[in-house]
Amino acid sequence: MQNFIYYAPTKVYFGKDTHKNVGEIIKGYGFGKIMMQYGKSSIKRSGLYDDVIKSLKDSGIEVVEMGGVEPNPKLEFIREAVRIAKEESVEMILAVGGGSVIDSSKFTAAGAVSNCDVWDFPTRKREVKEALPVGTILTISAAGSEMSANAVMTNMEENMKRGYGCDSFRCLFSILNPELTYSVSKYQTACGIVDIMAHTMERYFTPVEPTPITDGIAESILRTVIESGRVLMDKPDDYDARANIMWASSLSHNNLTSCGRENFLAVHQLEHALSGEYDQVAHGAGLAVLYPAWARYIYRLNIPRFAQFARNVWGVERKDDESAAIEGIERMEKFFEFIEMPSRISDFGLGEVSAERLADLCTYGRKRTVRSFEELDYDIIKEIFESCL
Amino acid sequence: MQNFIYYAPTKVYFGKDTHKNVGEIIKGYGFGKIMMQYGKSSIKRSGLYDDVIKSLKDSGIEVVEMGGVEPNPKLEFIREAVRIAKEESVEMILAVGGGSVIDSSKFTAAGAVSNCDVWDFPTRKREVKEALPVGTILTISAAGSEMSANAVMTNMEENMKRGYGCDSFRCLFSILNPELTYSVSKYQTACGIVDIMAHTMERYFTPVEPTPITDGIAESILRTVIESGRVLMDKPDDYDARANIMWASSLSHNNLTSCGRENFLAVHQLEHALSGEYDQVAHGAGLAVLYPAWARYIYRLNIPRFAQFARNVWGVERKDDESAAIEGIERMEKFFEFIEMPSRISDFGLGEVSAERLADLCTYGRKRTVRSFEELDYDIIKEIFESCL
Repeated sequence: MQNFIYYAPTKVYFGKDTHKNVGEIIKGYGFGKIMMQYGKSSIKRSGLYDDVIKSLKDSGIEVVEMGGVEPNPKLEFIREAVRIAKEESVEMILAVGGGSVIDSSKFTAAGAVSNCDVWDFPTRKREVKEALPVGTILTISAAGSEMSANAVMTNMEENMKRGYGCDSFRCLFSILNPELTYSVSKYQTACGIVDIMAHTMERYFTPVEPTPITDGIAESILRTVIESGRVLMDKPDDYDARANIMWASSLSHNNLTSCGRENFLAVHQLEHALSGEYDQVAHGAGLAVLYPAWARYIYRLNIPRFAQFARNVWGVERKDDESAAIEGIERMEKFFEFIEMPSRISDFGLGEVSAERLADLCTYGRKRTVRSFEELDYDIIKEIFESCL
Repeated sequence: MQNFIYYAPTKVYFGKDTHKNVGEIIKGYGFGKIMMQYGKSSIKRSGLYDDVIKSLKDSGIEVVEMGGVEPNPKLEFIREAVRIAKEESVEMILAVGGGSVIDSSKFTAAGAVSNCDVWDFPTRKREVKEALPVGTILTISAAGSEMSANAVMTNMEENMKRGYGCDSFRCLFSILNPELTYSVSKYQTACGIVDIMAHTMERYFTPVEPTPITDGIAESILRTVIESGRVLMDKPDDYDARANIMWASSLSHNNLTSCGRENFLAVHQLEHALSGEYDQVAHGAGLAVLYPAWARYIYRLNIPRFAQFARNVWGVERKDDESAAIEGIERMEKFFEFIEMPSRISDFGLGEVSAERLADLCTYGRKRTVRSFEELDYDIIKEIFESCL
């Protein structure tokens, strides 16, 4: 087991109707004026907007609204939010939405108490030393931003998506009501499932032994997500399945699943090249294509680990490690098919896609390698992309 | 899955040599003057005291020492610590030791910012609304106080041991170096193992279904503690085994293992009657006697749950649920024997022990029942005590 720091201070309010207490919760922290960020009109259609506003008003909380956060939140929007947050002297940011709304809120929270441009943070010109508190009401289980230390944003002018992570990006509280995810489409639900699984697997497939508690937690999360994912394909309003996936979303990315291990996020780096280049590729769907492709290349370097994954996550019973490992990867592919995810890049209908171009993007023009069981260089990454074109 | 609140904000610094950074860590929070509590002379013999003092001095931290915390920390000591903490205007409390030192520090931290007597807290005359921050350097894996919201203390005048729990009792940080537990005796190690298992099982054996992630986490903790416990009986300085047990100690009692479930702590309540009456009974050893006795009485009320426990924790392969459940309890008993814990109350050599007297203490003179799969009343509790006299 490696030395580690574990810090997940977010207070989680989990369960039915919990979002209706948001006003009381915020009042309990002593805040009187907040900024509320949200995305498009879906929270208005669902009635969530009305519930939240009512609860805030009932508790006497003054609200500055910033609706319209887009997927892969945009720098321009965040700059405007920072300006208004300063002008209005809001005391915290409430994010009502998914990962993009939360990430936008985190950067806004950091910008609101600094004098630099918010783009300075992800470009590492400045460090985030403090930020306003951020609370969330989560509406989609996927990114894990509700408990993680991370956020991403996009600079459209420079066509760059960049991330940042720090303790100040840990949310003060997160309200997780599984019922709010009933209306998430089958496709987005499946994308979220793959993202959650990838957050867990990226920390699982690293060369540190033994970490039995962390392994057991990861395997439990994966088994549960798979089982609940199967249920949700037919019954999108199954409370327990939605609840399992939502709790898995938070635990998969709050670092509980990497205690004592390394955390490579290798396949995420491959996928960022794909969805960075092709806006129509959803992150989770990209991961569904690339995870098996990466696994088929890499498993040879740690067959016992992939065999453990096959047996403890997928229930593979083969005695021979290598054939167990391969069957585990096959079952993962079949599960991704079952939840109607693409299995090849061609499934996205992007026309001619160049593995060379993707490998070039992923390695910043052959300037870096990607850390995995071995360093993945341009040639290896190209080979992985080629294998799933 | 039930609604739940999860809040475990303690920052954990886990691993080798981490205690040598305590000065830097405290300085990072901006504290200049602290109170350091510890127990008897063992931390001086081991060299830990010198390491800690050196680190604090090197970082320019002023230290007010309060050595001499006793097991089941005493009200008189805590009152004196509160007086000195106020007089010296210390900004935080550093607990170097096990559960008793941490609990003493938590009550001191609450007392130092209030005007009432600290005994008012556990007797529910006053609420803990705030407390100084508490940091820990843990030296024994058992009580879980390093991440829990709880603390206990003893009033010798009134012969009462009482507990209290609140968010302010969550430690600011906990330094967990498994090497510091190498010198813990075989007996104390075993007592700690039983305590950790009990913290997990008390949350596992409650009538809420389904909570598959929480179950998987609990089962993983239990399997790991059992396996590592076996190793430690022969190799007290096995780093990974000590590390597993230490991380299990923290996760078993920080409420991660009760997310979505109820949390009865039924057997703890039986045990408090036993070790409350007989000072020579160690808490963990008392639990080792009472857990199987309770389980043999209660398993009939939820045979599938006990069968799941048998299969997923102990590897029992029987197909029939009831015989699997019974074999699981038998394996637990055998494991407690293997780690040289007592199996009957008579093993403590207490002379004549009255089951009536213990049941009377446990029910506060038949004034309360103990919540479990059914309400345990005086008669049932007496029967459980009788079964393991």
